[in-house]
Order: sequence, then structure tokens, then C-alpha cells
Amino acid sequence: MIRFEQIEQCPDTAARVGRLTTPHGVVETPAFMAVGTYGSVKGLRAEDLEALGAQIILSNAYHLWERPGVEVIADLGGLHAFMGWERPILTDSGGYQVMSLADRRTIDDDGVTFRSPLDGQHRRLDPATVIDIQAGLGVDLAMVLDECVASPAERDVAELAVERSMRWAEQSRPLADRLKGGLLGIVQGSVFPELRAAHARQLVGLDFDGYAIGGLAVGESKEQTWEAIEAAVPELPPDRLRYVMGMGYPADLVEAVARGVDLFDCVIPTRHARNGMAFTRDGTLVIRHTRYATDPEPLDSSCGCPTCARYSRAYLRHLRLRGEMLGGVLMTQHNLWHYLDTMRRIRHAIASGSFAEMRAETAHAGSAGGQEDRPL
Amino acid sequence: MIRFEQIEQCPDTAARVGRLTTPHGVVETPAFMAVGTYGSVKGLRAEDLEALGAQIILSNAYHLWERPGVEVIADLGGLHAFMGWERPILTDSGGYQVMSLADRRTIDDDGVTFRSPLDGQHRRLDPATVIDIQAGLGVDLAMVLDECVASPAERDVAELAVERSMRWAEQSRPLADRLKGGLLGIVQGSVFPELRAAHARQLVGLDFDGYAIGGLAVGESKEQTWEAIEAAVPELPPDRLRYVMGMGYPADLVEAVARGVDLFDCVIPTRHARNGMAFTRDGTLVIRHTRYATDPEPLDSSCGCPTCARYSRAYLRHLRLRGEMLGGVLMTQHNLWHYLDTMRRIRHAIASGSFAEMRAETAHAGSAGGQEDRPL
Repeated sequence: MIRFEQIEQCPDTAARVGRLTTPHGVVETPAFMAVGTYGSVKGLRAEDLEALGAQIILSNAYHLWERPGVEVIADLGGLHAFMGWERPILTDSGGYQVMSLADRRTIDDDGVTFRSPLDGQHRRLDPATVIDIQAGLGVDLAMVLDECVASPAERDVAELAVERSMRWAEQSRPLADRLKGGLLGIVQGSVFPELRAAHARQLVGLDFDGYAIGGLAVGESKEQTWEAIEAAVPELPPDRLRYVMGMGYPADLVEAVARGVDLFDCVIPTRHARNGMAFTRDGTLVIRHTRYATDPEPLDSSCGCPTCARYSRAYLRHLRLRGEMLGGVLMTQHNLWHYLDTMRRIRHAIASGSFAEMRAETAHAGSAGGQEDRPL
Repeated sequence: MIRFEQIEQCPDTAARVGRLTTPHGVVETPAFMAVGTYGSVKGLRAEDLEALGAQIILSNAYHLWERPGVEVIADLGGLHAFMGWERPILTDSGGYQVMSLADRRTIDDDGVTFRSPLDGQHRRLDPATVIDIQAGLGVDLAMVLDECVASPAERDVAELAVERSMRWAEQSRPLADRLKGGLLGIVQGSVFPELRAAHARQLVGLDFDGYAIGGLAVGESKEQTWEAIEAAVPELPPDRLRYVMGMGYPADLVEAVARGVDLFDCVIPTRHARNGMAFTRDGTLVIRHTRYATDPEPLDSSCGCPTCARYSRAYLRHLRLRGEMLGGVLMTQHNLWHYLDTMRRIRHAIASGSFAEMRAETAHAGSAGGQEDRPL
């Protein structure tokens, strides 16, 4: 159902170009997934995402389970048919969302019980339920239920979460044949490299279709992020997909790719777009600024997106200040193009042997230390 | 700059097919203008409007004058360049918006002084200023400043407004050569047919490029609407465009066309879309209703719009309930298609001699008396 092949290997770094084959088609990696939590990437139609070159998108199993419900979607032919999106879909299990309910959930060894933010009623998610939800949705890549701890975490807290996540992974793995697509294990271990490495090794023993590295970009330092990834990746088999969840800024993607990561998702391009911030090759741009009031240029003169083909910064600023929906739509398609184009350039650079150069330019252009103005 | 030719005449009614030539191209009439008050039809890109077959759109001179300002737009090459829309644009003068400020404006014989809703500062609009604003925007069809009275109006109030509107029209007419496009006079007279007829006659004496009938659909009965139109239209020359402002439901458009009207604008299709109401050939549909929760059908199975080509009622309901932007986008493009397709069918019916039949079917399918569920 799921096959991953490494096609090209960077001679200088762990970066690689791969080909992921799924029930809904092929994804060239490294790849970025736009986030469509509730079954829509905010403001964009499926045909818009296709036109931007999106190969795969992410949705959220927990949220769709709550509303409209898995039976509704399954009866309508699955999530692809429901959304009108025929390319691959990965769903996050929703474990992260449930874990973040803090005082409204209790975790035990078999799962998590929580009060739904929707109606205050008690609900329970366990590893089998999470598999069945994603089976009902018919997604291409499903995620196991895991326990994601807040950062910074104490070592014993992180260790307990790894043990629990591992137990749940063991319970999940035999159920993978209920799925139409593949099942990914999730490496936890917070900021402790030896926990990350050990958990990765254990998960690989279960032979998942791919491996996510979870619990990152949740408040730790950038150095801790890279240490965690560097600890986990060498334990993972080269013929399996590697996915870092919830990352990041464009320069972060380059750095993670250099460490052997194949797949990403993040709300940053879409959320920042709706908040009026555009990514460009020259850095970020806050469109409400007065300096753009009469600026006839597109957001990024080197950009090939439909927004830059037709609309000026002055118009986008006007839409932003007036609160016009179209502003969010146009900014979103620009930012997503920027991310997807960054991935295309990364793949091209790896294949042509120039990835180390691209990485150096990115690092030179700005630090990867979290500032938002660094260019890519 | 502006030319209107009548191409076909309905043998049974005053309906006609026309061709309006403007600096930005030809508009086949009867035509409907989507409303883009602030320089955007909410949620839709210019390319989306083109794909729906929109020939001309309406924007608002007053609002654009306030923000971002006429100089900004003029410096960027005019409203077409600013919006990225290359087809014709008509601007409402904004007189209606200013008049509706009620206790915050005073009208005198030379114009209107008001406190801006934006900053509380005093502003003044007079006939020449309104022409100059629209000249700066570079629109294809500009409107004179007029006084629009609330409905129901006393006869003496309506009469005074006609007199003032006529004086302003006289002041405006010689300034038409400042415009890139044409200038339309506006017939007032509230619900008094003899005032409507007299004002129309007087305006025609000034030889405008076309004539709007304003101050309708503001609370009067449907019978009063038709009486006002029936009083004005026979006074208007056949070789000039006739435009009823702010109308209406699809069945209203058919009835107005039957009375010789060529052009319409209304927020109903777009606003109702954002509020979750779809127009279909079988009537209107409130998408949040439970009955659509598992409905795999498109909004309208006879519809050719991009929404109906790909998305189910169940998905649109889900987007609506989740407050997803995409719901508004998809509903808007459907409703606008429905309106624009209604106009295409009207033009075809007139040209093929079957308009009276179409009108009878529309009237049979539902009353034109204001109920929202009547089909078209």
C-alpha cells in the first residue's frame, strides 16, 4: 500500500530525494503538507491546492471524528471524496490536541479519557480507536496514538511518555491492515537524545511504514530540536519515510532536510498569511505596513504564484486593512506556493548536487534561530 | 466611450438583449454585476470572477475614496489595475451610503456634508467631487451624485429629493468629459409614478450615457417597485442602458427585465452565500440544515459552477458549521454562477423568443412577492 524509495542522496549531508507511493498517488520528497485541520486548507479550494503543486495535505483525525463524524465521512466515500481532494492525505491522530487539553484529560496505560471541548462530555481515545477512525477516513498515511509531553519536560516525565507511546505503538502495529494506506510510528523522547535514539530503535523493531519524529517545535531551543532529530534519524531505516511533525520556517525545513528528513507539516505559512505576513525570497513582509500603501510590486518579484502574477502589495495591504476575505485567500496561496517551491528547490538542489550550497546560502541569509525575518 | 445597442426585442414584453461597449470591453445585457464594495467581491479572485462569466462588476466610489484613497488607486493605474480586473467596472457614487448616515449628515443644495464613520471628521461630497473621484478611479460607468430618500417617503420629501437630484445631475452632466467611461443619471421619485416619469423625462433632456433607477428595493412593496419602473422606463430612450440599482432576487430580475431593464447589481447572492444560503433552480437551500448532513449531492444538480462540479452539500454544511472560510468562498461562487447563469438564460430566452415562457415558469414556480424560497 505504501512504498518509499530513496532516489538521490546528497553527497555532503543526510539530505535525500525520495518517492513515496500511496493509494492516491506518488509524493516526491522532501515534501511539505499544507494543514487542513477540519478538512479544508483555510480559504483554498482543492483545485487551488492542485494548481499550487500540493502533492499531499494533512488533516486531523480527532477533529473530524468529533465533527462531522467518521461515519458521515465514510458513508460519503472517505475523506478524499468528502473534501474533493484526490491526492494523498495524512491524518494526525489528534493525540497532540487531546494531550494539550491539560486539566481536562487523564492518561492511563491503555489510552486517554478527556472531556470534549465541544460539549463537555467524556470521550476516550485508545490506540485501536485511533486506527479505526483513520481507517474510516480512508487516508493514505495514518499516525499511531502517542503521548506528546510539553517542553521543557523532566527526564522521568519524558521517559514515561516514551514507554507509554511505545506500548501504544505495539498495540497499534498489528491493526495496520485495517487501514487503506500506511501507518507511521512516532518517535518521542522530548529533548533527550538518548531517549530519542532508543525509542526510534524500538519502533523500528515493529516495522512501520514510516517514522514521524513528534514532540518537537513545542518550545525547546533550536539546538535541542536538531539534537533530537540527529539522535533519531540514524536509527531509522533508509527505505522508510521520515516525517518531522509541526515544523517550521523555511530555513528550518532546509536544516531538517540536511539531517535526513523527508516530510513536514506546519500551520505557519497558512496562519501567517491570514495574519498578513508573507514569506518571500528576501525575507518576510508584514503587509499592513505603511511602506506598502502605494507599492505596485507583487509580494515577491521572483515568485511564480497566482497572487504574484496579478496582485500588488498595495492591493493586498488594502484588502488586509479592510478585513476582506480575499486578502487571506491571496496571501495563503502565496505563502503555500513559497513553501512548496522551497521544497521543489530543495529536491532539485539535492538531485543536482548543490544542496550544501543552498543550505549555506540559507544559513548565510539569516540564522535558523527562530527570528521571523530571515529570508529564504 | 460608451455605446449601447439594442440587439433583440422580446415580442411579448419590454425585455431586450443589448450590447454595451465600454473602454474595457463589451457587456451583453441583461447583465448582473457582482458587488465588490471595497474593491473585491468577497472571497473571489478576479480570475474566479472571469471563470464564472462575470462581464462587469460594481464597486463603491465613496468607500474607495475614504480608503485607500483615490490618489493611491490613480497612481497605481486606476481601479482595474489595482484590483487586477480587466473587464468593465461601474462605481456607485456612494451617495446612498452617505444618505444613510441619517443623523450624521446635512444636505444642502450644493452637496452633502457628513461626519465620516471612519474618523468622525467632517467630509463633503458634491456633484463635481463625485465625478472627479470616479475619474480618478478610471471606471467604465460612473454615477452622478443623487439624493436617495428612505421608503416610505412623503410625497413632498420625495419631490424635494428629485429636485435636488436633478440640480446635481445638471451640474454633473457637463463634467462627463473628465471621465474615461460613461456617466449615468439616476431617476428618483420614491414610490410616486408621476415623479418617476417626470424625473426620467428631465434627465433624458440632459442626454446621459445611460439611466439608473435608484431608490428602489429600500422597503417599498413589490407592486410599488414595479409601478416605479413602469413609470420611468417608457421615458428612457431605447438606445441607452437602463439600470435598476440594488435589485434583487432572481425572480425579481426576470420581472424587471420584462419591464425593459438591462442592468442589475445586488449583494444578495454574495451576502446570502456567506450566510449559508444557496440559490438553486429548485429554490433556496439553507446549508446548515441537518437534512444535508450526509447529502452527497451538489447544491444544484443542474448547475455548471465549479462548486457543484466538486463539492457536496454535506461538505459545504461541514465547512459552514466549522466556520471555515472555504465555505463562504464555495457558496459565493455558486450563488454568483446562479445569478450570472440566470442572466445568460434570460438573454437566450429573449433572443430565441421564449422569454415570456421563461417568465411564466418563474412566476408559476413562486411568487415574486419577496419570499426567499421561490425557485428560479
